[in-house]
Parts: sequence; structure tokens; C-alpha cells
Amino acid sequence: MDIASLVGMLAGMGIIFHALATGAAPLISFYNLPSLEIVVGGTLAATLLSFPLKEVYKVASVALIIFKKGGMDTLGPFVNEAVELSRVARLGVTELEKEKENISNHFLKDGVQMIIDGYNELEIREIMEARIENREIREKWEENVLRTMAKFAPGFGMMGTLIGLIGMLVGMGASADPSKTIGPNMAVALVTTFYGVLLANLFFNPMAEKFKSRIEQQTVMQNMLIEGVSMLYQKKHPLVVREKLNSFLPPSEWERDGDGGEEK
Amino acid sequence: MDIASLVGMLAGMGIIFHALATGAAPLISFYNLPSLEIVVGGTLAATLLSFPLKEVYKVASVALIIFKKGGMDTLGPFVNEAVELSRVARLGVTELEKEKENISNHFLKDGVQMIIDGYNELEIREIMEARIENREIREKWEENVLRTMAKFAPGFGMMGTLIGLIGMLVGMGASADPSKTIGPNMAVALVTTFYGVLLANLFFNPMAEKFKSRIEQQTVMQNMLIEGVSMLYQKKHPLVVREKLNSFLPPSEWERDGDGGEEK
Amino acid sequence: MDIASLVGMLAGMGIIFHALATGAAPLISFYNLPSLEIVVGGTLAATLLSFPLKEVYKVASVALIIFKKGGMDTLGPFVNEAVELSRVARLGVTELEKEKENISNHFLKDGVQMIIDGYNELEIREIMEARIENREIREKWEENVLRTMAKFAPGFGMMGTLIGLIGMLVGMGASADPSKTIGPNMAVALVTTFYGVLLANLFFNPMAEKFKSRIEQQTVMQNMLIEGVSMLYQKKHPLVVREKLNSFLPPSEWERDGDGGEEK
Amino acid sequence: MDIASLVGMLAGMGIIFHALATGAAPLISFYNLPSLEIVVGGTLAATLLSFPLKEVYKVASVALIIFKKGGMDTLGPFVNEAVELSRVARLGVTELEKEKENISNHFLKDGVQMIIDGYNELEIREIMEARIENREIREKWEENVLRTMAKFAPGFGMMGTLIGLIGMLVGMGASADPSKTIGPNMAVALVTTFYGVLLANLFFNPMAEKFKSRIEQQTVMQNMLIEGVSMLYQKKHPLVVREKLNSFLPPSEWERDGDGGEEK
Amino acid sequence: MDIASLVGMLAGMGIIFHALATGAAPLISFYNLPSLEIVVGGTLAATLLSFPLKEVYKVASVALIIFKKGGMDTLGPFVNEAVELSRVARLGVTELEKEKENISNHFLKDGVQMIIDGYNELEIREIMEARIENREIREKWEENVLRTMAKFAPGFGMMGTLIGLIGMLVGMGASADPSKTIGPNMAVALVTTFYGVLLANLFFNPMAEKFKSRIEQQTVMQNMLIEGVSMLYQKKHPLVVREKLNSFLPPSEWERDGDGGEEK
Repeated sequence: MDIASLVGMLAGMGIIFHALATGAAPLISFYNLPSLEIVVGGTLAATLLSFPLKEVYKVASVALIIFKKGGMDTLGPFVNEAVELSRVARLGVTELEKEKENISNHFLKDGVQMIIDGYNELEIREIMEARIENREIREKWEENVLRTMAKFAPGFGMMGTLIGLIGMLVGMGASADPSKTIGPNMAVALVTTFYGVLLANLFFNPMAEKFKSRIEQQTVMQNMLIEGVSMLYQKKHPLVVREKLNSFLPPSEWERDGDGGEEK
Repeated sequence: MDIASLVGMLAGMGIIFHALATGAAPLISFYNLPSLEIVVGGTLAATLLSFPLKEVYKVASVALIIFKKGGMDTLGPFVNEAVELSRVARLGVTELEKEKENISNHFLKDGVQMIIDGYNELEIREIMEARIENREIREKWEENVLRTMAKFAPGFGMMGTLIGLIGMLVGMGASADPSKTIGPNMAVALVTTFYGVLLANLFFNPMAEKFKSRIEQQTVMQNMLIEGVSMLYQKKHPLVVREKLNSFLPPSEWERDGDGGEEK
Repeated sequence: MDIASLVGMLAGMGIIFHALATGAAPLISFYNLPSLEIVVGGTLAATLLSFPLKEVYKVASVALIIFKKGGMDTLGPFVNEAVELSRVARLGVTELEKEKENISNHFLKDGVQMIIDGYNELEIREIMEARIENREIREKWEENVLRTMAKFAPGFGMMGTLIGLIGMLVGMGASADPSKTIGPNMAVALVTTFYGVLLANLFFNPMAEKFKSRIEQQTVMQNMLIEGVSMLYQKKHPLVVREKLNSFLPPSEWERDGDGGEEK
Repeated sequence: MDIASLVGMLAGMGIIFHALATGAAPLISFYNLPSLEIVVGGTLAATLLSFPLKEVYKVASVALIIFKKGGMDTLGPFVNEAVELSRVARLGVTELEKEKENISNHFLKDGVQMIIDGYNELEIREIMEARIENREIREKWEENVLRTMAKFAPGFGMMGTLIGLIGMLVGMGASADPSKTIGPNMAVALVTTFYGVLLANLFFNPMAEKFKSRIEQQTVMQNMLIEGVSMLYQKKHPLVVREKLNSFLPPSEWERDGDGGEEK
Repeated sequence: MDIASLVGMLAGMGIIFHALATGAAPLISFYNLPSLEIVVGGTLAATLLSFPLKEVYKVASVALIIFKKGGMDTLGPFVNEAVELSRVARLGVTELEKEKENISNHFLKDGVQMIIDGYNELEIREIMEARIENREIREKWEENVLRTMAKFAPGFGMMGTLIGLIGMLVGMGASADPSKTIGPNMAVALVTTFYGVLLANLFFNPMAEKFKSRIEQQTVMQNMLIEGVSMLYQKKHPLVVREKLNSFLPPSEWERDGDGGEEK
């Protein structure tokens, strides 16, 4: 469970709800079904028009995953795992194959498998780098879907407000005392703008940002694992492996083995 | 038929029409021929000014294609086709030439043809990469036409609204009771803004996005086919071909042959 | 003569003029000399401040060229010319020198001259690539001038409107019946915004876009000619030259020689 | 203590406070708790939703560091330190190890340590470059948090204003004399926009800019230190070290040793 | 003296002053000290917060330099100087050392000095390229300061307007006849927006643009000089030097020596 997201979501909705409830207008004034139809319906329709159906499906499932699984807090454990593997790799491929089953990360496991299968170092790097690149391309499409939705929502909000305003202005000429009706009608028109801004700022933009962080975190981690697998292939000493992989961590998280990194 | 686009288009137009029809103003208030002239005519005129005539033609035909042909759902079949070809390629160029006729994708077919014609691997890669690059340049011009139209439409919408507003304000001084006429006149002025925002959000921007996805999907696919042709040239084992090309797919779509990828 | 630009310009101005003439306000309301001074004068002044004098001169002349000369419709003739030259180049440098005089494109001619002058392939590529790069840098400065003008124009339009608005508001307190004068005064203020948006959308932005297309078309063409000259140097077979240069064209424009590209 | 930041912060708040205090409205009108809740609370909530909790924590601590520690004024002392070390390095690794303890910069110290530990030049460069790259990736995440907050703040400011406006407009129909209440209500609504713009312009954007400068300054310095360590490894003459490292400084800050750089 | 900048500045200020003086409001209405305080003071405060003190100082001095020194009109003289030097370089290092004193450009002089000092070609290129890169990094920081100021100015303009508006709206409820005071008060509020837009469009943005042109012109020139120094090192024939360096000039400025470039 990603606590920050949950807290953020609850807090954000709570703050807005509190502001609506304590404001001058009765809470019911902020509920307007036609406005909701235009903003939510219009945004979804424009999204379907903009992207292949498959991408839109994926985004929906991705949104759930973001809330279920927390982000990576640190790369430290992956460094430790690679250092452990480097001890085993020096004993030979047979030992490495036995150890393979204990690797939880699929990307690392596939890399180790390629060492066992006898690919050479360059081939392994190329294949692993191609996987990172293609994962990034695919995931950035989904980030882009969210970003585009964050742009459509205020657009349709504005459209709804224009529809409401035009309706109000057309009616003004017919009304005996327009100053009585102009206020409530304009309020309804502005609700649509409010929905659009709310959706963009509390849903689509934060989700796109969070998705972007995860893509980048994954890439840093997988780039680190490529270096790791490369050094497993070369049967480098665990101390060297740690020194090199530490470069991917902030200095405050560097671990050093008991014998201290002073000798190599 | 690209169902998502069709559904999106119908849903989007339905939602807007529904909002207009159920709003406070009679539906006819949203129809204003001069507004339409300014937004559609002005956008087209500015587009003709901005781009070579040929690019503008192409965009019109491209818009139709987007609705007719669906996007690629997966690269899986192309991986399978390349794996099949790699079995044939190991039998020699004569066998490959016979198989060539069954290849449906032109880009792959041209690559195989170059193997048969005796080009070396580097030449084939260079020619195929130049083709991808130049296709991207050409298609991004067309995406750019759509993006620019999406910027012109609200610009001309604003211009129309300014023309309407100025007309109304000039008339205000002459009118005995301006409050009777100000409403309906301003409504007409805002209709032009509405048209501009509608065109940008429900037509030009979604079309530009969809076009962009297709350009990128094509590039990923063709980059994969370059790797494939390169391995055909090297007569690599089908299992290696599949392992490498799998990198272009999300892990969930990886297929493995019966003998499982464990041996090479 | 670039027909699209001419049609676009006439259509755009016609549409705006038609809208002004048939609108509620008399046509003369849209003519306001002080507004014109602020928008046109201010934009020019800010442009002089922003760029070296020489760049500003160049942009003025470039604007005329855009209307005089049409864009390239296709690269096909250049491919044909390169293929012809490749037949001659195989006969030796003396033949190539004779043929040189018939080359109309200066960039290609300089390349062929360098072959005749005895530069080696790498030197020729380097010099030709440096020319493309430096031409792009120079021309992008001019595109940038137009883009910046497209940003200044609405900025000064807004400034003019603020000046008008402030004048009107200051006067309001003094007037006996402000509602009579507020309309016409505000109309005058908005005319300046209208000028700024019009200049940006119907002049500066389209011109910047057209200029950008031409820069990119030139670059694609010159990159193609570098490949061509490189193959002339290597005395490649005309069929190979055509195959490689075709990569710069959309497949629909590929020509093949009578003997069909099947042999090499 | 970073004096510029402190002066800027005090001056900025002083100017705004002065403007509020001397304006037409009593100072208390600019204090509105619900507005503050929406802007500050909403921005924080959206930030929590957008980023991993850890990044948000870091940003808070980073904000303090910016005020505590001043930026680097010049790279000159680092050049001098590297030149000094180059004299020692020529005497051998043993001497270098003794000198190591006096190096205050951690990045330089780690580099010297790797020379002592016997890594070769290429390994040292790769490790040090990986450290720069990964530090930049991590720190740009934090800059991005601040930039995103600078975008959320006015967004929530606008939302608060919309809530206030809608409340006011709904109330207008019910009020006997709306013109008495419309002013003060709208004032309250606009206070929220004011808060949002203030937070973005006087807090989040300046902090993001300052953070960005520091990231880039660090990178220039560390790139210079890589060159330095590389030349220590090669035991280059101190004069050559100075000549090369001077390239990272503006010419006005170049120091030359007594013997003047004329000889090498 | 940079005439374009001076003319632009005088013309821009003249146009705005003329518009203010001939407008409906007395000229004094556009002078408002508190507005000036908020926009100028606020922008400076935010700038101090955003950047190291040293960068802010530099920008102030840079602004003066822009007006004092004109831009480069052409690279032609530098090409001629390099061609002259290439004649001398063929005579040997001793001759080159004598000629060195006549070189006015410091960057070129340092390059020639490094040839004399016996650095090899690769070292010279690396050092000179590092100098270009680091000069660009430093100067882009200063461009960035100006760009950021151009964004802060309208931000503080808007803040000032909000402060004024709120003051006015709060006062409205208390006033007997608000319609008398609303105009002049709102005028004062809008003056702040006017100041912000004016500063951005007539000062900060043009200065940032001009600064950017100069950075890019310098880079093109220095890149050309690297090629020149590289060919001095190789003792290339003056004709070859001219042919290669011409690539940095537009074809219309190419000079050819008397013997015409036809032979090499």
C-alpha cells in the first residue's frame, strides 16, 4: 500500500470538501450532473479519440497499481543482492544456476539466465538495454495518456462554462429583472470550470507525475542491474561490484563490507 | 475500422450535443454562421499560409486513414514472422527468396530483398535506418500540421469573440437600454470561442495525438524488423532471434517456443 | 509563385474583412491608429532590441522569398540527377568535370567540385555536413525572430488594451452617466488586443511555420545529396545509388529503372 | 549563510507586506483561513499524490540547506587544490595517500582513493561519471517536486476562487441588494488566487531555480574534478593540469603560476 | 555602440509614452509608486532568491555590455585571419610565435599558444572544446536569469493587481455610491499589470533574446576557430583552410583567393 498516495488523495478530497461545505453556498450547488457529463464524458471521449484503445485500458489498470504498490524506497537491497551473486558467480556457472531461483527481480533473473545460456557480454548488454528502452517507450505512452487527459479536462470545463454562459446571456434579454437570475446561472456555469481544474490538479496531473517517477526509478534500477550482470559475467570481486554499484546510490546510503573497501 | 476512434468521436459529439440541447438556451443559439466562417475558414487559411500545399492535402487523407485502419494491437505476430523466416534463412538465400513472397510487411520484405540482392549487413542496416528516419521526418511534419491547427482554432475563436464584443460595445452607447441587448450579443460573441475550443479539443488535438502514437508504434516495429533482418543475415538460431526480439514486447506478451528458450 | 501561401493570405484576410464588414459595428470602428502604433511599432521596437540589426533585415527579405518561390514538391528529380551523375562518375573524373556545369543545385555542384579537386571522402562529408549545420543555425535564428515577433504582438496588444482600459476607468469617475461611454471606450481598447492576435495568427506564426518547413526540407535534401556525392566518390552502380537515395522518399514516389532493381 | 537568499526573502516579503499595509483595504482582509487551507493544503496533498513520500521529505530538508549554505562563488580553489595534488602525485602513490587526508571534497577524495586502490584510469572515469549522472537524476527529481508545487499552487488558488465565486453568485439571487455584498465576497474569493500566485512566485519557483543552479554548479565542479583525477593518474605536470582545468573557469579568474604557463 | 538596440529601446519607449500621453487618461494616472515597488521590487527580490548573488551581479553588467558593443556582423574577417595564419604556420613554429602577437582574438591566440607550447592536436581540441562548453554553461545561466525575470515581472504585476482589486472590492460595500469609485480604483490596480507586461516585453525578454544570439554567435565563431587552429597544427594549405572555414559562412559571404579555389 502506497501510504503517501492514499494520504494525499484523502487529504486533497477532504480539503476541497471542507471548503465546499463551509463556503457561502449550500453544498448542493457544487453538484451539477450536466457539468459532470461534459467534463468527465468529454475528457474520456477525447481520450478514446486520441489513443489506441489498448493504451487507454492499460492506464486504467496502471492507476490502480500506483495505489496498491509503493515506490522503491532505496536501491540498497538490489546492490546487496548483486554483491551476493558476485560471490557465487566466481564459483562458476553451475553454482550461479542453482542460485538463480532465489532472485526475485525478473530483469536481473533474465540477465543471469543469459549468462548461463552462454550469451557473450556484449549480447547481454544489448538485449538488456533494448528491454529498458522499449519498456520506457511503452510506459511513456501511458504517462502521455494521463498528461493529455490533464489538458483535456480544463478544456472541456471551459467548454461547459461557455455553454452555460451562452445559455444565461441568451436568457438575459427575455428576463424582466436579469440581476436576479444572472448570479445563480453563472454559478452553474462556473461549476464546470471547477470540475475541470479539480480533475487536472487532483487526479490526472498527480497520477502522471507519480507514473513518471516510477518509470525513472525503474530505469535507474535496471541500468544498475545491467552493470551488475556485466560484472557477474566478468567475475569481478564483490568489493569492486559494491564500489561500482554504490555510484547509483546517494552517498548516505552506501554500505561497505566489513573489510571496508580499503583493499580490493 | 478503429472502434475506439469511432466510439470516441460519437460519444464526444453526443455529449456536447446533449449539453447544448438540454441547456438553458435554445439549440439554435449555438449555430452562428459568421462564427463558423471565422474559426473554420481562418484556421484553414492560416494553415495554407503555414505549410506547403502538399502537406495540407496529406493531412486530410491521413485523417481518414486514422478512422479506417486500427492501430497495431501487438508486435507479437511480427516476432513470430521473423522467427519463422530465421528458420528459412538458415537453409540459404534460395529458400529465403521463395519465402519472400509470403511476407506481407513491405519494410520487412525490402530488407529480405536486400539480403537476396547481396548487400552486406552494414549497408542493409544503414538503408533501413535511413528509411525509418526519413519516414519519421515526413510524418512528423503532418503531426505538426494538426498541432498547429489545434493552436490556430482557439486563436481565431478569440478573434471572432473580440470582433463580436467590439461590435456590441460600440452599439451600447447608442442603445436606449443596453442591458436588454448586451446579453444576446455577448452570447453570439462567445459562440466563436466555443467553436475554437471545441475544434481544438475534440478534433485537432486528438487527431494529432493519435497520429503521434502511430508514428511511434511504426518506429518501434520497424526498429524491431531491422534487428530481425540483421539476424536473418547472420543466420542466427530461431531461439536467439525470439529472445532478442522479445525485448521489444512487454514481458506479458513474450512467447517461448516449445523447447523453451533454456537451450540455445 | 507559392499558390498555397497566396490563397491562404487572401482567404484569411477576406474572411476577417468579411466578418468585420458584416458585424454589428461599422467597419471604421476597427480602424484605430494609436492601437496600430502600439502593436506594430512596439513589436518592431522589441524585435530591434532583441536581435542584431542584420537578422532583422534578413527576415524582411525572407518573408518576400517565401511568397515568391514555392516549396519543393518532391525530392524525386534530385534522386534522378544523382543517378545520372553516378553513370558519369564511373567514367572518371574528367567526364564528371564536363558534366559538372549542368548541375543546377549549388550544394551538389560544390560536392562534385570537391571530388574533382581531389579531397578524400571523409573530408568531403565533413565539409558538406558543416555547411548543413551552419546553414541550419543561421536559418533557425531567422525562424526565431519570427517566433519572437509572434509572442511580442499579443503582448503589445495587451499593453494597448491596458492603456485604453485605464484611460476609460479613470474617466468613469468624472462622467455623469458612465454607462453611455464605457462601451465605446472599451471597444477601442479591445481593438488593440484584436490587432495583436491577428498579427500573431495570420502573419508571424504562419510565416515562422513555413520558414521552419523550408529549413527542414532543405536539410533532408542536402543530407540526401551528401549520400549521393559520397556514392559518386565510391563510383557505386546507379542501381545502388537509386536504392539508397530512395530511402529519403516516401515509398509511393520510388522510381525504379527499367531493369528493375532486382539485380545489382 | 546564503545572504542573497535571505535578503531576497526578507525584501520580497517586506515589499508585499508594505503593499498590503498601505493599500485601500485593511490588512486583515488579506488573511483568510479557508483560502490558506485550500492553497497550502491542496498543494501539499497533490504533492503527496504526485511523488514518493521520500522525495517530499527530501525537498523539505533541501529547502533549509539552500538557506544555510551559500553557493560556490568560484571553482578557483578547487583548481588550486588539484594543481597542488598533481605535484604530490608525481612523487608516487605513497605520498598521495598521505596527502589524501587533507582533501575536504568527498568526490575528489573518493577519486584519489581509487587511484591508491589501483583501479585503472578508465574504471575511475566510469565510476566517477556514473556518480555525477546518478546524483543529477536524484537531484532533478527534487527540483521537479518544487516545479510541480509551483504549478499546483496557482491551480488550487484558482479552485478556491471558483468556490468563492460560485458561493457568491448563488447568494446573489437571494440578496435584496446584491451590490452591497458582491464586493466583499469577491474580495475573499480573490484572496485565494493571490495566495496561489504569491506561493508560486516568491517560494516554489525561486527555490526550484536556486536548486537548479546548485545542481549545475555541482556538475561543472565534479566534471572538472574528474579531469583533475584523470591527470593525477597520468602524473601530468602541474602547469598542464592548471591549463586544462582553467578551461572550466571564466578567463578573468584564471590564475597562472609564477613561472607563467609559457613553458610546459 | 549597438545602434539597433538603441533605436529599438528609444522607439519602444517613445511609442509607449506617446500612447500614454495621447490617451484618454492624464499621463499622471500611469505613475503609481506602490505599483512600481511591487513589480520592480518583487521581481528583484524573487531574482535574488532564485540565483546566486554573483550571477545577479553579472547580469547587471552584461546588460550594459549589450548596449555598448555591437554584435558580430560577419565571421569573414576571422576566416581571413585564419587563412593568413595558415601561410605563416607553414613556415614553422618560430614564425608563428612572432605572428602570435598580432592576433586580437583571445580564443584564437590561446589556441596558437598551445601549438607553440607543443601540445598535440587532440589535446588542443579537447581544451578548446572544454572552454566553449564551459563558457556556454556560464552564459546560459545569465540568459536564464533574464528569462526568469521576464516570468516574474508579470507574476508580480498580477499580484499587485489582485491586491488593488481586493482593496477596491472590500471598500465597495462601505461606499454609498460604488460606481463613482470603482473606476479609478480599478485603474490603479491595472497599472501594476501594465508595468509587469511592459517590463517583460520591452526589457527582460528582448535582453534575454539578444544575449542568446550573442552566445550562439560566439559558439559558431569559436567552433570555426577550433577548426582553424586544428588546420594550423596540420600545416594545411591556405586554400584548403579557406574552403573548410567557408562552411561556417553563408555562401554569399564566401571570399575566394585570387587563384580562385579551383586548384588545391
